[in-house]
Amino acid sequence: MPKTHMPDALADFEPTARTRVKRQGIRGAYDRETVYGILDAGLLCHVGYVIDGQPYVTPTAYWRDGDRVFWHGSSASRMLRQVETGIPVCFTVAMLDGLVLARSGFHSSINYRSLMAFGHADKVTDPEEKLAALVAFSERITPGRWAEQRPVTKQELKATTVLTMRLEEVAAKIRTGPPGDDEEDYALDVWAGVVPVHSVIGAPEDDPRLNPGIAQPAYLKTVKIG
Amino acid sequence: MPKTHMPDALADFEPTARTRVKRQGIRGAYDRETVYGILDAGLLCHVGYVIDGQPYVTPTAYWRDGDRVFWHGSSASRMLRQVETGIPVCFTVAMLDGLVLARSGFHSSINYRSLMAFGHADKVTDPEEKLAALVAFSERITPGRWAEQRPVTKQELKATTVLTMRLEEVAAKIRTGPPGDDEEDYALDVWAGVVPVHSVIGAPEDDPRLNPGIAQPAYLKTVKIG
Repeated sequence: MPKTHMPDALADFEPTARTRVKRQGIRGAYDRETVYGILDAGLLCHVGYVIDGQPYVTPTAYWRDGDRVFWHGSSASRMLRQVETGIPVCFTVAMLDGLVLARSGFHSSINYRSLMAFGHADKVTDPEEKLAALVAFSERITPGRWAEQRPVTKQELKATTVLTMRLEEVAAKIRTGPPGDDEEDYALDVWAGVVPVHSVIGAPEDDPRLNPGIAQPAYLKTVKIG
Repeated sequence: MPKTHMPDALADFEPTARTRVKRQGIRGAYDRETVYGILDAGLLCHVGYVIDGQPYVTPTAYWRDGDRVFWHGSSASRMLRQVETGIPVCFTVAMLDGLVLARSGFHSSINYRSLMAFGHADKVTDPEEKLAALVAFSERITPGRWAEQRPVTKQELKATTVLTMRLEEVAAKIRTGPPGDDEEDYALDVWAGVVPVHSVIGAPEDDPRLNPGIAQPAYLKTVKIG
């Protein structure tokens, strides 16, 4: 592999006029480690698109593979049928990490990890590629489960649309840490700090129609979202 | 109060071509109890808007008061400055409640509560109304805290934009419960069920610069999001 291809693949994203983070007290990040880290932690994205001048924001599950994100659904989905035509898309992921309670309302805030990507989506048309993408999604959440399930049929694959978007114009926006109060307010006898918010996985609930004697698989213990 | 005003205020939202939920296996809801319930559980919304044909999806904190939602931020925020002009907005809230692991990949899904509202936002310009809105936001999360904090200054209030959007064209979309497998797949010896995902509040973290002897207030124990 020619070495010249490497720096390109690992380079930071280039901030543009619409992705450069301008607000104070918030960290903008354009490096792949941060961007991929946020993407690999989350499960739910919000896809923005425009029909006749009207914005739509559809929440949906997504996954990442290399420098691409994917989402999917029924081939009859209005969102997918619009977005697969290649119209401009805004792909946003946001995770709430905490309430930042400052000594003043003005400096109170939230901690979060978020990401905004502009681009357009392509439909994954090749059946093998489509299948591989769906396997990747399943394995990201529940590694090993795909092989245990009833195999996907040709009809099901046909009834499923998978879209993919290359990450090109993308920025992460993050807030972490304690409040940033006005210097004179630190003297006030007001409690201040952070109330963390976590996304946690609860105890798996057996399907009421589960066949007797089927134990919960080990991979359920390692599911992690957020 | 004339009684004729009551039915209007309590009526269901009227589904429209763009809010009517069409997908199978998912529950669309247009009643105020469901819509308000989702709104009052969440904290983070995604606001969609269009600039020069490009969709933008900005995550931000929101709160509800009656049949209105509110969000706010710095008066310098690009999102707020665009949206306050009254352009079409899509206001979306989504909370992930669980992974639905079916016996086939095709019927695997997620449980969630979500809500999509179309409309436009108005800027809250009256200083007293603006202050009341900010107090309502604070009280929704941490009741009692506003009175303890250093009062907001006129300059801070000026530097803050509060937007409000009346809920008119709105639909909730919810999935709950176990997987819905193909009838013949229930015979398979594959584990199936739901892996719940919860949003939980962690132990509050004192600001490193907190004055000695300040205890964590009681309202921190009752914070609830999700």
